[in-house]
Amino acid sequence: MKNKQFILSARPIGEPKETDWQLKESDMAELANNQVLVQVEYLSLDPAMRGWMNEGKSYIEPVKLGEVMRAGGVGKVIESNSSDFSPGDYVHGMLGVQQYAVIAANGLHKVDPALAPLPRYLGVLGMPGMTAYFGLLNTGLPKSGETVVVSAAAGAVGTVVGQIAKIKGCRVVGIAGGQEKCDYLINELGFDGAIDYKNSDVMTGLKQHCPQGVDVFFDNVGGDILDAVLTRINLHARIVICGAISQYNNTTAVKGPANYLSLLVNRARMEGIVVFDNAKHYGDAAREMAGWIAQGKLKAKEHVVEGLDNFPQTLMMLFKGENFGKLVLKV
Amino acid sequence: MKNKQFILSARPIGEPKETDWQLKESDMAELANNQVLVQVEYLSLDPAMRGWMNEGKSYIEPVKLGEVMRAGGVGKVIESNSSDFSPGDYVHGMLGVQQYAVIAANGLHKVDPALAPLPRYLGVLGMPGMTAYFGLLNTGLPKSGETVVVSAAAGAVGTVVGQIAKIKGCRVVGIAGGQEKCDYLINELGFDGAIDYKNSDVMTGLKQHCPQGVDVFFDNVGGDILDAVLTRINLHARIVICGAISQYNNTTAVKGPANYLSLLVNRARMEGIVVFDNAKHYGDAAREMAGWIAQGKLKAKEHVVEGLDNFPQTLMMLFKGENFGKLVLKV
Repeated sequence: MKNKQFILSARPIGEPKETDWQLKESDMAELANNQVLVQVEYLSLDPAMRGWMNEGKSYIEPVKLGEVMRAGGVGKVIESNSSDFSPGDYVHGMLGVQQYAVIAANGLHKVDPALAPLPRYLGVLGMPGMTAYFGLLNTGLPKSGETVVVSAAAGAVGTVVGQIAKIKGCRVVGIAGGQEKCDYLINELGFDGAIDYKNSDVMTGLKQHCPQGVDVFFDNVGGDILDAVLTRINLHARIVICGAISQYNNTTAVKGPANYLSLLVNRARMEGIVVFDNAKHYGDAAREMAGWIAQGKLKAKEHVVEGLDNFPQTLMMLFKGENFGKLVLKV
Repeated sequence: MKNKQFILSARPIGEPKETDWQLKESDMAELANNQVLVQVEYLSLDPAMRGWMNEGKSYIEPVKLGEVMRAGGVGKVIESNSSDFSPGDYVHGMLGVQQYAVIAANGLHKVDPALAPLPRYLGVLGMPGMTAYFGLLNTGLPKSGETVVVSAAAGAVGTVVGQIAKIKGCRVVGIAGGQEKCDYLINELGFDGAIDYKNSDVMTGLKQHCPQGVDVFFDNVGGDILDAVLTRINLHARIVICGAISQYNNTTAVKGPANYLSLLVNRARMEGIVVFDNAKHYGDAAREMAGWIAQGKLKAKEHVVEGLDNFPQTLMMLFKGENFGKLVLKV
């Protein structure tokens, strides 16, 4: 039995390109004790993957050159040397960009394809959903009546942040690229305002849609958008730093927020989050979010692209803002 | 009776220059009800004064063109239309850069020249001391055994931050300009390490003096020093944004912290403070700090320059790092 794998073969400078990986056909490894063989069905494509390709310490180890590219995914158990999993089980874990994963059982957990379509376990019921839930509620600390702004608002995390903020009684304004996404935020997800950063001025949009200023900013993009929002924050505002996709492919230094002294003027806070810190509480969050989904208060949107071979180009959609909802690769 | 006053006559671009003020001799205003006439004895010169000279909203109103330059000070009551103050009382308040202040009684509070020399009420027992106390304890949240780094460490705020951190059982490292200041921090104030940013590499110094990383950074300077410290912070570090003196005279945009994504990697926080928010608790803080002074745990250093006429050049010492301790102008 053969396996197709994307192996990291070079550390990108700036934008990743196809040649940074090598598509390799290899023999399947033997299953060791407590290992499981999983047929990968869907892979999660996330901005964080760009950071994993860099050398140097971050919140998790970088992918080593010559290793399978790291990615979360869901798939079906084919063979198991663990008493916790049986062939036919569906599982979620860091399966990697490949057709089959031989993986330690303790890195997997079961998902139920009868409760939700599989790609949803990579989106609202997966890491992006958890990131939104814990980042907004524990670090953003939104209070009813406050104004919450979220960037990359039509993405996997942003859509969930905005909808949870609405559930909590906030005025919610999203920043997204293109009229279609902005219409979706307002008409489908119930956002109070949307700013199209590709076709309009963000500062003007913030003034228009946030007449009472900004109390919580959940930032996925960094760069000029972070600087624009910093000029509109209220006293004691909370800025959640979830990501900075506008800066990940920089070949020069990251653009730091020139307006950060607004934190001083407004006694405001900027705080970074990493979803893994909340692992103990994922279950509680998933139950609460499943309830919201059942009540129609939390809608999910996945953007599924087919074909393992299309991995490099599909990942690049994230950096061009071309995905609409959670980006998933069907293997 | 005549009064000499420094009137703000231009809004500086970049470094303030003498011609941004006009030294004017004017007649004394009549005392209205609840007003007090104070002979100004010492003026506090602070980095924040640069910000007050700019147009536009900040945490307090800017000084208007044609108004007396704002400054905190201590002085002696000469005449009083308030039942709260009598001639001969010593008071602290926003007296302004002038020989005599006609000022509302509710903007003044008494100080006791028998308990401490008057300049001390502008330093450790005044706003800089309060800034250090509340900023470090309420926002920096230092725990015994943690590493605390402070920039502008030999300044009015920095000296107090470092000493309180030592009292709380922390390892304390100061960043200051010049060997003399660094020696003072270590030999007189008991800092564990000092980094001379004018004559050595800050990154190297941080590696050397903070082998366990940085848990709390109390920042008064911004710019490259903030960026350097961001590369050395620990998980859940707290960065207190008190000021950014390196950026106040910029004619181009403020240099934002390019390494701010270290907040994400380390789930760390950057938060701004303004001392006035703690006004209700100044009394408690002053009592605790007076106790530390009495026990020899908290030392004060003032840098007194004489002569009201020298105000412009003396203020500029702050931006050149030429003051050593709390900068005070003797009128």
